[in-house]
Amino acid sequence: MLENINSAQLKSMTVRELLALSEEAREKITSTVLKNGGHLSSNLGTVELTVALHYVFDFPKDKLIFDVGHQCYTHKLLSGRYSKFGSIRQKGGLSGFPKREESEYDCYNTGHAGTSVSAALGIAKARDIKGENFNVIAVIGDGSFNNGLVYEAFNSLRLLHTNILLIINDNGMSIAPTVGSMHEYLEILSEDARQKEKNDRHAKIFERFGFSYDGVYDGNDLECMITKLSEIKERLKSESVILHVVTKKGKGYAFCEENPEATHGIAAIKADEVCTEYSRVLGSKLTELAAKNSNICAVTAAMTSSLGLAGFFEKYPNRSVDVGICEEHATILCAAMAAQGLKPYYAVYSTFLQRSYDEIIIDICSQNLPVTICADRAGISGADGETHQGVFDLSFLSMIPNLTIAVPKDINEFADMLEMSATFNAPLAIRYPREGRRIFKSHAPLEYGKWEILNKDVADDAKYAVLACGEYALTQAVAAADELAASGVKVEIINARFVKPLDGEMLNALKAERIITVEDNMLAGGFGSLIDTYFADSDKKVKNFAYGDAFIPQGVASELMRDFGVSAKAIVDYVLENENR
Amino acid sequence: MLENINSAQLKSMTVRELLALSEEAREKITSTVLKNGGHLSSNLGTVELTVALHYVFDFPKDKLIFDVGHQCYTHKLLSGRYSKFGSIRQKGGLSGFPKREESEYDCYNTGHAGTSVSAALGIAKARDIKGENFNVIAVIGDGSFNNGLVYEAFNSLRLLHTNILLIINDNGMSIAPTVGSMHEYLEILSEDARQKEKNDRHAKIFERFGFSYDGVYDGNDLECMITKLSEIKERLKSESVILHVVTKKGKGYAFCEENPEATHGIAAIKADEVCTEYSRVLGSKLTELAAKNSNICAVTAAMTSSLGLAGFFEKYPNRSVDVGICEEHATILCAAMAAQGLKPYYAVYSTFLQRSYDEIIIDICSQNLPVTICADRAGISGADGETHQGVFDLSFLSMIPNLTIAVPKDINEFADMLEMSATFNAPLAIRYPREGRRIFKSHAPLEYGKWEILNKDVADDAKYAVLACGEYALTQAVAAADELAASGVKVEIINARFVKPLDGEMLNALKAERIITVEDNMLAGGFGSLIDTYFADSDKKVKNFAYGDAFIPQGVASELMRDFGVSAKAIVDYVLENENR
Repeated sequence: MLENINSAQLKSMTVRELLALSEEAREKITSTVLKNGGHLSSNLGTVELTVALHYVFDFPKDKLIFDVGHQCYTHKLLSGRYSKFGSIRQKGGLSGFPKREESEYDCYNTGHAGTSVSAALGIAKARDIKGENFNVIAVIGDGSFNNGLVYEAFNSLRLLHTNILLIINDNGMSIAPTVGSMHEYLEILSEDARQKEKNDRHAKIFERFGFSYDGVYDGNDLECMITKLSEIKERLKSESVILHVVTKKGKGYAFCEENPEATHGIAAIKADEVCTEYSRVLGSKLTELAAKNSNICAVTAAMTSSLGLAGFFEKYPNRSVDVGICEEHATILCAAMAAQGLKPYYAVYSTFLQRSYDEIIIDICSQNLPVTICADRAGISGADGETHQGVFDLSFLSMIPNLTIAVPKDINEFADMLEMSATFNAPLAIRYPREGRRIFKSHAPLEYGKWEILNKDVADDAKYAVLACGEYALTQAVAAADELAASGVKVEIINARFVKPLDGEMLNALKAERIITVEDNMLAGGFGSLIDTYFADSDKKVKNFAYGDAFIPQGVASELMRDFGVSAKAIVDYVLENENR
Repeated sequence: MLENINSAQLKSMTVRELLALSEEAREKITSTVLKNGGHLSSNLGTVELTVALHYVFDFPKDKLIFDVGHQCYTHKLLSGRYSKFGSIRQKGGLSGFPKREESEYDCYNTGHAGTSVSAALGIAKARDIKGENFNVIAVIGDGSFNNGLVYEAFNSLRLLHTNILLIINDNGMSIAPTVGSMHEYLEILSEDARQKEKNDRHAKIFERFGFSYDGVYDGNDLECMITKLSEIKERLKSESVILHVVTKKGKGYAFCEENPEATHGIAAIKADEVCTEYSRVLGSKLTELAAKNSNICAVTAAMTSSLGLAGFFEKYPNRSVDVGICEEHATILCAAMAAQGLKPYYAVYSTFLQRSYDEIIIDICSQNLPVTICADRAGISGADGETHQGVFDLSFLSMIPNLTIAVPKDINEFADMLEMSATFNAPLAIRYPREGRRIFKSHAPLEYGKWEILNKDVADDAKYAVLACGEYALTQAVAAADELAASGVKVEIINARFVKPLDGEMLNALKAERIITVEDNMLAGGFGSLIDTYFADSDKKVKNFAYGDAFIPQGVASELMRDFGVSAKAIVDYVLENENR
């Protein structure tokens, strides 16, 4: 039934048929995600809500925005993308997030938390300015609801003189269980509803901002949702409404219901690949360091487990803070704790560092405070696509004064850097990928700002020197050098483990006439560009391997690296072409 | 009396003496600001509140954080900085903002809005972790109170298990009059107080987040403030408190009281210098374009007048939105309006662009939406110092795919760029300084991605080509070329008016063997670094003039440019040294 459905046909179906359709969607999602990886529990929880939305509203004329977007799978199935659904999160396939370029049913792309209310208001305001007539609906989870963006959007609802429907999808989780007073408040509202008493006093916060509040209802109850949404559709002509629904994350799949955090996003089942996640090293090393240094503390924004810090949080609850999806606040907390003599570690995904860019510059770096930023999932992160690649960080961090940037070549060097960080009295960012796939033989002691030559034997007569930062780039560099050595071309390999400061002493001592840089980051402003500038006024020739001027879509990280220009083959081709010139 | 006072002595003074001290502070602030420039009205409004805080609390043991920091002058006068006060905002002098390096009474640097509650919580949490005992107080204006950071901090108060005092200094202004529902809410609370009835229902929002709310009191009534703060000091042992006070912005100086927006920050009185602000051109040109194009709309974050858009807002109220100090939200609003076919202009100071960096990347650029970002006060902005320099923007914008970056050489070219923007269907950032000081004779028609040669007569046999972007950099380049021409050295001058994309055709056609870049931005990741990369693998030598790896303190913009390495003299010296090598 689901296979050929479209949003319009749905409207002539009976509730019984819609329920059958929902079950079919649930099965399709489960089987596909188990194969491709993806967001599972968040999508299973919102099947009925999405079916009801499509039944009651008229998409794509009406506009639907999913906050973060990790709950849009049912929506994709109902809007003509069933046949492509098997390609979700794969190279060239459907995105795991809403994408305007994919369907007219996706009116606004999301990926990072808290943007949906602002986006809904912008779309509604544009509608009003243009004199158009349609409904605008945003669906936001209670996790995203912690983000400051929501407050900024709420604050401007009245001054925009427009109407939207905001559905709070309350499942108690923001990957990790949701924390904070707003979450407690949502729970109080749920409790009111359970007791069948609507406590007017409690709903006042939302009304203060101009929303009419309606809740709490069971978002997994299809009939209830249809009734409620139909009623609200009328009210939207004259007011903005918050509909508060409770859904069961992972609904219908017992394992997911019981393990909502672990099944929020799951990886595709892979051939047995041995890797140690960098996050595990962060967790164990930081816990070890904290035993010796009572000033060490850790701050996260709703991703404690994925960042490897669950053990630390358990062992040192008093020195651990998860503030929910509030990256800006988390950054300032760290800066202020450091100003008082503590040694805070802020662990975060590279892509979410962008959220607190101003605070990194102003609060941490302009005050020169000893906060250590642990930027996980740096480089191409893979199947989540454009909105989640960690390929900008070296570029946006490297111009910030007072900041040291370290990039470990493997998990052992990462542990060394963490060891170093404990006594390092200034801002430090360490950026690393998710998976540690390789341990390099060379393991020179870490010295601040000093790089490491991996093959000293060729350093004196190598015509080429390849400077690479980070495990994945260095892996390509080594493979290229090995291949070139077999062709009789000597290439010096340097582990540029500090991107800031550069190792000027080593750069000045380079005998090679041609320098090659390799990194898992954008070209503009990245590591290679710093080397270009270093040698701009000299006779050295520099060739950069980094990502060009394009957003990098979803796919397998290693393939994307190659496709976007960072690979051993590209390096080898460049050198051989130059040799034969 | 004020001259030799310190915070401790204040405690033995009578109320009458404290009132006299307050008047003295007010006079000192007024006379100094009229001479040096600076924040006037915000400081005049908080004299009594600050005197009361110093009377009741024990600084520097207790910690005081001023949000934004533009109201800290009285605090500086009371904490041993009277004798240096005449140097405020001048090169090498006192900062106009709190600075840890300046005094132990300044525990946390501020400059951008909304950070104080997070900072107070971080300091309080550090105190608890270390088992110390002191009070932490944040003072925040109602303007900053609109920022999402406040909500993120509020949301985590309970989970941090700590106590702070938050003083809401409500003067109805956020440079421009404060907008939004939270502001209306503060007004309702004030109205309750005026009617001598405490409406419990109304205070519930703050209590929901774990604060005990106390208000509204007259913040200009010294005795009242002393009584209230003394009482709250006791309560802080067991709870967090919000003290809501109303102050009169510009208090005690009639002209300021009547013109709080115009006197929020005032410039030092200067010798008669003729300049046209770029913001005036933005306002007039955009208003003109909007008459022809009904899709054009404008969004600001609490700085409508300073950005030159007061006239636009008046003429097109329906297409204008000031969302208050909510830069992230403003950015998404623009993206969403563009997604619906409107043509939004987001005007903002360069330094505050940092606040919505993630939204620029994800919401605007990854969706490739035609939002025009007008980044005012780019480059060294002068007396506000480290936290307000707009010297990072080229670096953090230039690696973002889909974004075009234009930098006008003068106000006429700025108008051309705005004209171009109206039909430009992709993300565009135009960055410009505050003052237009010069009109260049050359005025080649604007063509997308194409640069302009200012002195074509020397292009064929110049040994040097200087590529400069923006009025101030180009002014230095022209002065250097003129001086060098007098010495018989030919220098081609190029107006690199697009930083992205670079004009590859012109770069490839350059005959000069040595390229010189000049910009009013950081070296790393900036315009020059893009040129370094462009020529990295070639025989061309490039020399960059840009700001090195340091935060740029307060001073006169033109002097700071020179001091930090961007000047005609530095260019001339480099060329002559090279000629004589």
